Amino acid sequence: MKKDLHPLFYPRSAAVLGAGADPERVGFNIFESIVYGGFKGPLYPIHPKLKNILGYDVYPSLDKVPGPVDVAVIALNQFSTVDVLEECARCGVKGILSIAGGFGEVGTEGVKLENKLAERANELGIPLIGPNTLGFINDDGNFYATFYPLRLIKGGVSVISQSGGMGLTIMQKALDEMMGMNKWIGVGNRAALEFSDYLAYLGDDPATRVIGVFMEGSEDALKFVKLIREICLKKPVVVFKAGQTKESDYMAMTHTGSLAGPYRLYRDILKQNGAIVVDTVEELVACCKALSLSQLPEGKRVGVLTHTAGPSIVAADYMLQLGCELPKYAPETYQRVRDVIGQNPPVVLKNPLDAAGLGFPALTYGRIADAVLGDPSMDIMMAIYCLHKNWRFPSREIIDVRNKWNKPAVAYYVSTVGDSAIDREMLQKEGVPLYISAREAARAVYALYEYKQILSSQAQ
Amino acid sequence: MKKDLHPLFYPRSAAVLGAGADPERVGFNIFESIVYGGFKGPLYPIHPKLKNILGYDVYPSLDKVPGPVDVAVIALNQFSTVDVLEECARCGVKGILSIAGGFGEVGTEGVKLENKLAERANELGIPLIGPNTLGFINDDGNFYATFYPLRLIKGGVSVISQSGGMGLTIMQKALDEMMGMNKWIGVGNRAALEFSDYLAYLGDDPATRVIGVFMEGSEDALKFVKLIREICLKKPVVVFKAGQTKESDYMAMTHTGSLAGPYRLYRDILKQNGAIVVDTVEELVACCKALSLSQLPEGKRVGVLTHTAGPSIVAADYMLQLGCELPKYAPETYQRVRDVIGQNPPVVLKNPLDAAGLGFPALTYGRIADAVLGDPSMDIMMAIYCLHKNWRFPSREIIDVRNKWNKPAVAYYVSTVGDSAIDREMLQKEGVPLYISAREAARAVYALYEYKQILSSQAQ
Repeated sequence: MKKDLHPLFYPRSAAVLGAGADPERVGFNIFESIVYGGFKGPLYPIHPKLKNILGYDVYPSLDKVPGPVDVAVIALNQFSTVDVLEECARCGVKGILSIAGGFGEVGTEGVKLENKLAERANELGIPLIGPNTLGFINDDGNFYATFYPLRLIKGGVSVISQSGGMGLTIMQKALDEMMGMNKWIGVGNRAALEFSDYLAYLGDDPATRVIGVFMEGSEDALKFVKLIREICLKKPVVVFKAGQTKESDYMAMTHTGSLAGPYRLYRDILKQNGAIVVDTVEELVACCKALSLSQLPEGKRVGVLTHTAGPSIVAADYMLQLGCELPKYAPETYQRVRDVIGQNPPVVLKNPLDAAGLGFPALTYGRIADAVLGDPSMDIMMAIYCLHKNWRFPSREIIDVRNKWNKPAVAYYVSTVGDSAIDREMLQKEGVPLYISAREAARAVYALYEYKQILSSQAQ
Repeated sequence: MKKDLHPLFYPRSAAVLGAGADPERVGFNIFESIVYGGFKGPLYPIHPKLKNILGYDVYPSLDKVPGPVDVAVIALNQFSTVDVLEECARCGVKGILSIAGGFGEVGTEGVKLENKLAERANELGIPLIGPNTLGFINDDGNFYATFYPLRLIKGGVSVISQSGGMGLTIMQKALDEMMGMNKWIGVGNRAALEFSDYLAYLGDDPATRVIGVFMEGSEDALKFVKLIREICLKKPVVVFKAGQTKESDYMAMTHTGSLAGPYRLYRDILKQNGAIVVDTVEELVACCKALSLSQLPEGKRVGVLTHTAGPSIVAADYMLQLGCELPKYAPETYQRVRDVIGQNPPVVLKNPLDAAGLGFPALTYGRIADAVLGDPSMDIMMAIYCLHKNWRFPSREIIDVRNKWNKPAVAYYVSTVGDSAIDREMLQKEGVPLYISAREAARAVYALYEYKQILSSQAQ
């Protein structure tokens, strides 16, 4: 039976049990994060002695709160966390976030305590995230229930992360990439809800367009994989799988060199069931970004346009290794390019099409891009450009060409994170993902084709 | 015989033949770049009609210039480039940068012209870079002879790039990484000087501490590799080798899948002869940065410190795959850590050492780092930290610990490029390279050990 996680992610009101005033402690930070994140509903800090935190009235216990509480964020220690469950139920709480560690991850006693936590939460019928988690974020509802106060960029990518730290890595990279995010879930120990519960929820969530997953292992791999098989028909699922179920096992496995086998097996099964599998956080974000922004190509034939050969060779190398094709342009395309450049010699008329110095001015670049994407042999364009103080990136032109031919384009800008920001924002708002890394750009192009393939093959 | 490239890289005066006033053209941009780069010597724009460019008096020809000219930057077309050589010789020019394309890369006629250019330059005894290049930069002498005006950060890494565009990719990544650079050479068609000439020059250059190389192929691989064998005893040589000698071959080879064989062979030979071989620009910059900033570890035993498990697992995975070891800490180290944390339970006492919430405050982090790097089983520390609005990165503490134990440390900060900038600057100034990517941090750690190994094995 699917669990109703909606009230947990979209609470109308929230209480933080164990909210505090010390900026060095979790109880303060998770409260501040909710405030800083812009939560609109009533928010109640709970603390036995404090009167005021960040301008909010503090209540000594949950049952003293003057209104209904949808979500209880429990930032108490592991024992108090279990103790407070009954009160949550009495107060009509619809969802719990349990932050504290000291459960299953610390050994036998912790396992017992964790089982008690999970059993009681299940008996009471309250969905519970955690314990031992950084928390979760629903940007769509401005609910930032994590003790790492931050703000994400709004968008359609939701992420489930087995590791809080890797979840942070994904969010930081998303910020550099200006990848819009929707929900972020640090699943923690998964005492009462498992990976598949979150995946099922995001699969049905209309605000989530792409699901990214970082996992070390899954308790019920079969269930997880079957679910991906269903969800991938509705939205892409991108998975970065590291190691094994437990860190200690994982480290041991790696030391003895026996990891590769099971990992590859896992990887193959994931792929066969419609997941897009990646090897790094960088690739995870690259793929999620492209899939959330861009339309899909009909096939895997990539027309590459550049004004400097090196980056196009490296990008082409990655794309070919992944499985893309770089076919020749049609003869009429060469004629169209010649019409743009006149008798100027430096343009190398092959794929990648190297416009050399003529590729600098945005207008010329755009006219050649028009020929490239208009070519009937091409399903998608990779537009490469190098930062130059006296020329601008041809954003407007790339967007226009994409709109004219109604085929996807991916931009690869040889630039810094900062210097590419304005064009990244402009292009991505219009559905053209921009990268500053050849490998990430190439992975993104292939991911768009890969998902197209998944839709075709899984639909049969 | 070694060619004297010093006057080319450190000219006392320079002329730009074909300097122009149109910001859309190369002749303007290369002149502006030299101005913008801060060249201190007399600078002479040469143009038959213009009177003034950017406030500089223009001369109609080289022999009308009122002083000696060490370097002639030739931004004329390919035919005029050849024609002007004699005049350069008559005027006592000591080095030439030849920008124009239209030589060997365009076919038979171009090859003839290129041979003529090279033969004449050699007969006249003037070293010539190019043709068909973006130019070169010597930040050490503030001479930015390229038509991509930019400023680098001063430092000890010099780069030789077969591709201008990949050279730009390296420089842009270096800016994001705040990697200090010394010289950058876009070798172009290598008509008169080959890869080995540049490598030999940088090998002897006291301002260059690390050499990075991007190459597609080398005319004389044996010479190149023998030279690396010599130079690697003086300074590290990091090589990113892509594709084959010619792009067309390369693309064709990749299509037919026959690339991997020769590429792997090349890679193995490079490694056997003391090069550090990498697979991406990101790795090239990661390794060059670490090698230019950090002392070397005695061995490959890495002590990892984190306050969040995920990134440490991923980093450990990469390091173990590369060949690092993550041994157990000594019993006395565990005791030292317990002395810091008291009876607090969340610290996981293994390697990676996970300080959990206790790792947030810089002071505690620093005390645990002291135990980690002081451990007799550890040769180097990887210090991992996640960006948090209310805590600071323990830069000062990491530097102090590194100084105290006189062992290297690498910082891995889960953060954005921008949010890590201040700590990156502080740490790197003190010899601790900082990364925001697990893979790059891991590659850097291994590169430090790798170079230590190279020094030991090649010295025998």
